[in-house]
Amino acid sequence: MTYCLAIATDEGVVFASDSRTNAGVDYVSTFSKMHTFGVEGERQIVLLTAGNLATSQAVVHLIRRDIDKQAPTHLLNVEYLFEAARYIGALSQQVQGEHAEAVSGGGFDVSASFIIGGQIAGQEPQIFLVYPQGNYISAGEETPYLQIGESKYGKPILDRLHMVSHLSLEDAARFALLSIDSTMRSNLTVGPPIDLLLYRLDALSIDHRLRYKANSPYYAALRKSWNDSLVKTFGVLPRFDWET
Amino acid sequence: MTYCLAIATDEGVVFASDSRTNAGVDYVSTFSKMHTFGVEGERQIVLLTAGNLATSQAVVHLIRRDIDKQAPTHLLNVEYLFEAARYIGALSQQVQGEHAEAVSGGGFDVSASFIIGGQIAGQEPQIFLVYPQGNYISAGEETPYLQIGESKYGKPILDRLHMVSHLSLEDAARFALLSIDSTMRSNLTVGPPIDLLLYRLDALSIDHRLRYKANSPYYAALRKSWNDSLVKTFGVLPRFDWET
Repeated sequence: MTYCLAIATDEGVVFASDSRTNAGVDYVSTFSKMHTFGVEGERQIVLLTAGNLATSQAVVHLIRRDIDKQAPTHLLNVEYLFEAARYIGALSQQVQGEHAEAVSGGGFDVSASFIIGGQIAGQEPQIFLVYPQGNYISAGEETPYLQIGESKYGKPILDRLHMVSHLSLEDAARFALLSIDSTMRSNLTVGPPIDLLLYRLDALSIDHRLRYKANSPYYAALRKSWNDSLVKTFGVLPRFDWET
Repeated sequence: MTYCLAIATDEGVVFASDSRTNAGVDYVSTFSKMHTFGVEGERQIVLLTAGNLATSQAVVHLIRRDIDKQAPTHLLNVEYLFEAARYIGALSQQVQGEHAEAVSGGGFDVSASFIIGGQIAGQEPQIFLVYPQGNYISAGEETPYLQIGESKYGKPILDRLHMVSHLSLEDAARFALLSIDSTMRSNLTVGPPIDLLLYRLDALSIDHRLRYKANSPYYAALRKSWNDSLVKTFGVLPRFDWET
């Protein structure tokens, strides 16, 4: 499994993903699930992948070939970001279709989900979730985040996003890291390193792309601070009326 | 869906469950999923149910009839708690079997899961999870909790149980309430009121059985305190090195 998410704020977009891939418990490996495509000053597009690794890799290969070969539609020439989402959906369907017959009845699942987002010059930044079926949704103001993969463990913390009155890009990045951290604690199929990317509104370049191992200083400090605070919080919760 | 859990501590066992039942989004209703059976001073047994409501109710009806009719095996005469788990598993299989033919191919799922726990005089308190297949597991020292139903959202907070150095029965009850609260925020199929039961080691009677609506004073205060602390915590997390 995998866990990836994106959070849209007024200041830009945060992308985060884990790196664990497993086909059964005895074949666990590390693959980055974050891919970036862009033209400095014109557009920046980030792709996160979850699901079947062969399918997601094939989609990324096709994206890169289409750019290389200057195909009629590719990530660096679409006019709107939603067209990028449509394009990814179509590639994903194409790849899944190629293997549909071979895997049918084999109990394999070749489906994959994608988060794609970023900004094209002159337009608002946006994030989209592309379903295994090829269709897609965009995040809205009420729910400014999207998740793919093993998403339930990390959702409660995201549902608290709205409690922070001004959500800076860095705050969103901290939420994203803690959401992945919560997931890793509860589910072995999600694991480090964590890829984190902060895209700042109208930058049209990527300033902060980070990779955290379990013992990376910032990530370790964040986790410790969060844990310590939770323990402290826990000690001061209201008592039941029969407690002295 | 449903969410129920039990936590075993040195001081006793906590049981908690939500009360929402839904068959599709247009038939949502409230049913307690917590059932107690006991003989004051001799044994106390608590049953939590998740899954198909017809199956879980039928199992509870059969349990009560077996007690009434003094069947060879019933909850008030089993010698060990694990026998109670076996017995519940057998009843569950029996009920599911009765409807297997009628529902086959209909896309219905008549399966149900159970948590059963408590104490029989002279023995340690224990908790068991009975799977839809009728087999069961008990909680261990490393993982002192069991969950059934919509369990992922509420798991991260339970995985922090071990961070509290002395887990009192009341602390465990607070963890259980917050675990259900996190789940309710993230998933509409889990909803109040919350049933909470604290069984104290060797009491062999039930001292605290509580029911919290969303606006019940203690539950509201607990939630507010937890939310406020999280927001405060969030404000003091370590900054990225480029933040001033």
